[in-house]
Amino acid sequence: MRKVCVVITARPSYSRIKTALAAIRDHQSLHLYLVVAASALLDRYGMVINEIKRDGFSIDRQVYMVLEGESPISMAKTTGIGLMEMATVFDNLGPDLIVTIADRYETMATAVAAAYLNIPLVHIQGGEVTGSIDEKVRHAITKLADLHLVSTKQAFDRVVKMGEHPDKVVITGCPSIDLAQEILASPKLDFCPFDKYGGVGRNVDIANGYLVVMQHPVTTEYEKASTQVDETLYAVMGLGIPTLWFWPNVDAGSDGTSKGIRSFREREQPENIHFFKNMEPYDFLRLIYNSRCLIGNSSVGVRESSFLGVPVVNIGSRQQGRERGENVIDVSYDRREIVEAVTIQTQRGRYDQAHIYGDGHAGKIIADVLATTPLSIEKRLNY
Amino acid sequence: MRKVCVVITARPSYSRIKTALAAIRDHQSLHLYLVVAASALLDRYGMVINEIKRDGFSIDRQVYMVLEGESPISMAKTTGIGLMEMATVFDNLGPDLIVTIADRYETMATAVAAAYLNIPLVHIQGGEVTGSIDEKVRHAITKLADLHLVSTKQAFDRVVKMGEHPDKVVITGCPSIDLAQEILASPKLDFCPFDKYGGVGRNVDIANGYLVVMQHPVTTEYEKASTQVDETLYAVMGLGIPTLWFWPNVDAGSDGTSKGIRSFREREQPENIHFFKNMEPYDFLRLIYNSRCLIGNSSVGVRESSFLGVPVVNIGSRQQGRERGENVIDVSYDRREIVEAVTIQTQRGRYDQAHIYGDGHAGKIIADVLATTPLSIEKRLNY
Amino acid sequence: MRKVCVVITARPSYSRIKTALAAIRDHQSLHLYLVVAASALLDRYGMVINEIKRDGFSIDRQVYMVLEGESPISMAKTTGIGLMEMATVFDNLGPDLIVTIADRYETMATAVAAAYLNIPLVHIQGGEVTGSIDEKVRHAITKLADLHLVSTKQAFDRVVKMGEHPDKVVITGCPSIDLAQEILASPKLDFCPFDKYGGVGRNVDIANGYLVVMQHPVTTEYEKASTQVDETLYAVMGLGIPTLWFWPNVDAGSDGTSKGIRSFREREQPENIHFFKNMEPYDFLRLIYNSRCLIGNSSVGVRESSFLGVPVVNIGSRQQGRERGENVIDVSYDRREIVEAVTIQTQRGRYDQAHIYGDGHAGKIIADVLATTPLSIEKRLNY
Amino acid sequence: MRKVCVVITARPSYSRIKTALAAIRDHQSLHLYLVVAASALLDRYGMVINEIKRDGFSIDRQVYMVLEGESPISMAKTTGIGLMEMATVFDNLGPDLIVTIADRYETMATAVAAAYLNIPLVHIQGGEVTGSIDEKVRHAITKLADLHLVSTKQAFDRVVKMGEHPDKVVITGCPSIDLAQEILASPKLDFCPFDKYGGVGRNVDIANGYLVVMQHPVTTEYEKASTQVDETLYAVMGLGIPTLWFWPNVDAGSDGTSKGIRSFREREQPENIHFFKNMEPYDFLRLIYNSRCLIGNSSVGVRESSFLGVPVVNIGSRQQGRERGENVIDVSYDRREIVEAVTIQTQRGRYDQAHIYGDGHAGKIIADVLATTPLSIEKRLNY
Repeated sequence: MRKVCVVITARPSYSRIKTALAAIRDHQSLHLYLVVAASALLDRYGMVINEIKRDGFSIDRQVYMVLEGESPISMAKTTGIGLMEMATVFDNLGPDLIVTIADRYETMATAVAAAYLNIPLVHIQGGEVTGSIDEKVRHAITKLADLHLVSTKQAFDRVVKMGEHPDKVVITGCPSIDLAQEILASPKLDFCPFDKYGGVGRNVDIANGYLVVMQHPVTTEYEKASTQVDETLYAVMGLGIPTLWFWPNVDAGSDGTSKGIRSFREREQPENIHFFKNMEPYDFLRLIYNSRCLIGNSSVGVRESSFLGVPVVNIGSRQQGRERGENVIDVSYDRREIVEAVTIQTQRGRYDQAHIYGDGHAGKIIADVLATTPLSIEKRLNY
Repeated sequence: MRKVCVVITARPSYSRIKTALAAIRDHQSLHLYLVVAASALLDRYGMVINEIKRDGFSIDRQVYMVLEGESPISMAKTTGIGLMEMATVFDNLGPDLIVTIADRYETMATAVAAAYLNIPLVHIQGGEVTGSIDEKVRHAITKLADLHLVSTKQAFDRVVKMGEHPDKVVITGCPSIDLAQEILASPKLDFCPFDKYGGVGRNVDIANGYLVVMQHPVTTEYEKASTQVDETLYAVMGLGIPTLWFWPNVDAGSDGTSKGIRSFREREQPENIHFFKNMEPYDFLRLIYNSRCLIGNSSVGVRESSFLGVPVVNIGSRQQGRERGENVIDVSYDRREIVEAVTIQTQRGRYDQAHIYGDGHAGKIIADVLATTPLSIEKRLNY
Repeated sequence: MRKVCVVITARPSYSRIKTALAAIRDHQSLHLYLVVAASALLDRYGMVINEIKRDGFSIDRQVYMVLEGESPISMAKTTGIGLMEMATVFDNLGPDLIVTIADRYETMATAVAAAYLNIPLVHIQGGEVTGSIDEKVRHAITKLADLHLVSTKQAFDRVVKMGEHPDKVVITGCPSIDLAQEILASPKLDFCPFDKYGGVGRNVDIANGYLVVMQHPVTTEYEKASTQVDETLYAVMGLGIPTLWFWPNVDAGSDGTSKGIRSFREREQPENIHFFKNMEPYDFLRLIYNSRCLIGNSSVGVRESSFLGVPVVNIGSRQQGRERGENVIDVSYDRREIVEAVTIQTQRGRYDQAHIYGDGHAGKIIADVLATTPLSIEKRLNY
Repeated sequence: MRKVCVVITARPSYSRIKTALAAIRDHQSLHLYLVVAASALLDRYGMVINEIKRDGFSIDRQVYMVLEGESPISMAKTTGIGLMEMATVFDNLGPDLIVTIADRYETMATAVAAAYLNIPLVHIQGGEVTGSIDEKVRHAITKLADLHLVSTKQAFDRVVKMGEHPDKVVITGCPSIDLAQEILASPKLDFCPFDKYGGVGRNVDIANGYLVVMQHPVTTEYEKASTQVDETLYAVMGLGIPTLWFWPNVDAGSDGTSKGIRSFREREQPENIHFFKNMEPYDFLRLIYNSRCLIGNSSVGVRESSFLGVPVVNIGSRQQGRERGENVIDVSYDRREIVEAVTIQTQRGRYDQAHIYGDGHAGKIIADVLATTPLSIEKRLNY
């Protein structure tokens, strides 16, 4: 019975890993320890911990680690605090292996703690290419990790090129696609977003189609965040199409983006935009599926959307280097470019399903690999 | 005028970087900020900070960060504390670039803080291969670093293979060789080790040749440290040759090694071994140069010794994968193997100089690169 | 020339100490080091650091220390982080004495760091009695402090009774009264609160009188915060008098109070309440001075308001035990009691000035004491 | 069933609380959570945790928190780290009350964490008077604590004078006396200190009487520690009586004292002194009981020794203000004074038993109080 400790530090990590979590919990050779940490515990990021509980997971440890300030210095200190905390948590729980997800800055705390405590580290979603600080974090974690569960063939190739032994790299697909797969059975929007999630701004009429926007700050340019989001705001207001807009996650600069949005709302009082904090994964995916176009720089645009065939307008550099399907049009922070691309996408309509990030069974594959793969903490460059 | 911040966390890092530090300080286009941290500040590791001051460097910040315990958990927490502290230090000093050295676990604090504060990170001595936790740390720092100053051609090749852009990787040689180069002008042992450095154990007669031992614990096997060092102790006692033995540096398990030594001393009262805490770099190199054989698992055995032509018996896995000259015989933790190899080496005598780790001008080359290389914090895998 | 280090961790601490800060800065025998920390740096508490700069103070160190979570556990960890950080700051600055203000939980970090670094600690506003965790913090700091600058005679008596030597306790009055004193020269409301400070809610008509509300969560009952503030909200809505309401400061449960307010706004859409984040001290005092009644549990109600003669309705236990003038009516968390008391106060009108908390020259007195008092870090119970 | 969490941070705290721990563990209405932290976990302070285990206690949490450096700054940071760690521990364990002992600097972490987490805090050994930083810590903890279990009538009076309600202060006696009481049944030295505890220095002949020395650094004068201990060393060497000397505990300056001792040993090679790290409590008490005189500044000199009737020479200010019996002669750091006082004491011999610190049943009394006292976290100055 292997004890698998999974650390969730933010909403998107949870959405992405959810089916794998369930598969681990339900696997007869695995015992799941679940650690919920960082912004996943915080009220102003929507208390994703409550969702996790509602989804039937029991939580073994909660780790408060976010130092307020939303600046580079608080990112560094948050990670330092997290490292101190995770060392205690892992020492207390004594897992056989630790799972960390993707590339958020605070996941470095999990990775370093696992490596220094000599506990095998499993990294999910390594080998991708984006840019900004995530790029450094992701590959640094690859070098700390002992087992790599990647989403795509390209990711596999990159991780192996970086010197990891091919036996330690497994293409599982991305578990976020599992959720997308599940909703395809009944893809209709079966809830009223305004009733269920509240949010702020006018209740726009979505009966005849709507846009969805998710725009996160780009960390290393965090002072420009406000200006960048303004372009999208003016573009979307100009288009006049009913729009559902999601506030950004915590990050250095999220304040920049959030402030930009808040200031725009006061100034321009846009009539066609309603703002949400976040939604439960299935609701969120159905919302995306039924949208006429997803706009912004979320990885959902390249990942789930390619599987769902949703038209996407991807803005700026945040997803640069990530594999994408034909459904994505890339534009820069420029309201005219955005308007033009959205117009093309809404006229074109739904794309064919693409299987770049897996076929919808990643969660189960991940649990099986975790249960059977030989564990080791010794490795060397495979050159 | 570029402000270069160098972080020294331990004695070996200082010895290794010393000539580069001087070259940076004396370079007309560079300003040196010197941060001394971790075990380099501690009395029981010989207060290397005092040496740094005696060498004429002024110190901008001292950072206490070592959490006592010498266990994996304290290594993790030490790094977490260091990360919190370094964020403050770097934010206060505002350097244009930050230099970190090699692969000790606590250097991860420097690397992550620099990366998250968006300050270009320079890594010295990346691309080498050893094993144990150092291996993970070293390559993870490579992925966080923006500029790589490596010691050898093989290291260059490895860093590039890991996906770093060749323009950002420079072979400078290892500055530790610079010191070795300097003492070659007057290599005689010009001091009495017992008078100058005290130490414990009988004052052995070194007039007719002597051995030097440096054996560090291997982190991920820290409980075996005591047993492992016992093999060397019995071998050296059995050989009966006057021996100068250096206590290990701080690490998880250093206690294991130190305790093993202490317990052996009480038990066996070896007559031919004198124990030192540490020495100033030039004295140390002259001592090595004039020894009949260097025994243990220090990187000095593969690095400086190849340049100095000193016979070496390298024990165990700690230097596995590091490039080495003909002067090194590898053995396992086995007293008979050690005795045999030392006998061969002492009979053979000095080897020819090898230039694997540079030709003795690395410090100046490093300063020049730091002064002129374009700086950037954006990078992507170069595949 | 004594180097005086003052640590400001929150808006109310700044307002309270402002004239003393100026007097220290301008004193010919004192040099001011100003450390701005905790919520005083944070955007969602109104970035009081910007005000401090606008007031002409230069800031020597900024210390991010607030761990997000707004729970008892994050209060403890915030203080732990602050203690680590303040040790570095005080060690770097090397002040001759350190000044801490009042009784917020995070000020314990300043107090412990000063005591352990053997730097004389000056405590401003000790000896008062309130309740909740502040009570413990305040008196614990008294026992760590070497010099006590208290606001009232009763406070002096209490500090001496606790075993402090009378020579080390000085009644200076409260510097918050200095500001109140200054605005009495031109007390008219000389700005439009809505134009200058924005805020949310309808722009109520304040020409014919208005109420001001400041209600903070009571820490040890933080889950009830939302229910408690509801009583005030319904009372004020019911009264129908134009009202200016200030959001609470950071504290465990501030989220409770803030959430209560936010939820009430959505639900009830009160027409007579406008909400502000905060105001500059002079503006704030003029606003209070001209209000018909101050409602809530802020210390402003017992302190500045007694000097200004403003009618106050004080709710709940937060100010319990604080000396107060005739201008205060105490009520419990009960909308009917609140309505009744406000009605009495608005009918009665302004009270006479009371000098309980000083006569308006505390800042200068404090600076003089800091410049001349003998310094020591040794003390014993004076029994 | 009340869950009582006791935090042990150092050897002397354990010795002092041991019988209370056993009484709590064995009490039918109490459940004991035992947290072992700080120097109690460290090898170079003798791993008191091993003794605790041998004594049959099970340990719920281990907390590494000592930041190396042994300076004021590392004391502050150690406490900050401890505060972060204890918050996690207390939150995980969820005790009904938390017990902290005496006045070591790091106990502030326990006290603040308990107070901020709203868990009733019990302070053992408040109300005493000594000096140095301990004085501030002790009384600050009194102000954070909700229940005070004091050793003496004078301590009771002082705690009440400081404003604590008499109902919340209980004279239990000091549990350290319980151990002394127990050994009186068979007080003979029933072990060979050299065989059982090793130590360094010559095995002196203790058959005809011996001295015991315990001298700790005085924190706020930590640089003088080495000079101060020299006086005692020369005095004891001069006396020529066989002497058993205990190394100091961890503290800022312990290095000063330890270094002073080490340097003296090298220099003077004293023939009549043997040095020990520490001993198990009963062995230690028998050793004290049978000694001709206890020398130094340990609280054992005023506390257990008064009960045991052992002659004591107390050096310097460390115990200043502590109640003491007739068995104590106070001297300053002066070798002549020390020699003179020891001569008087060794000629006089054993004193009568004094009951100042209790009659030997404190442990049981403490457990009973913890089981039955009403718990509360609300308090105000009782003036």
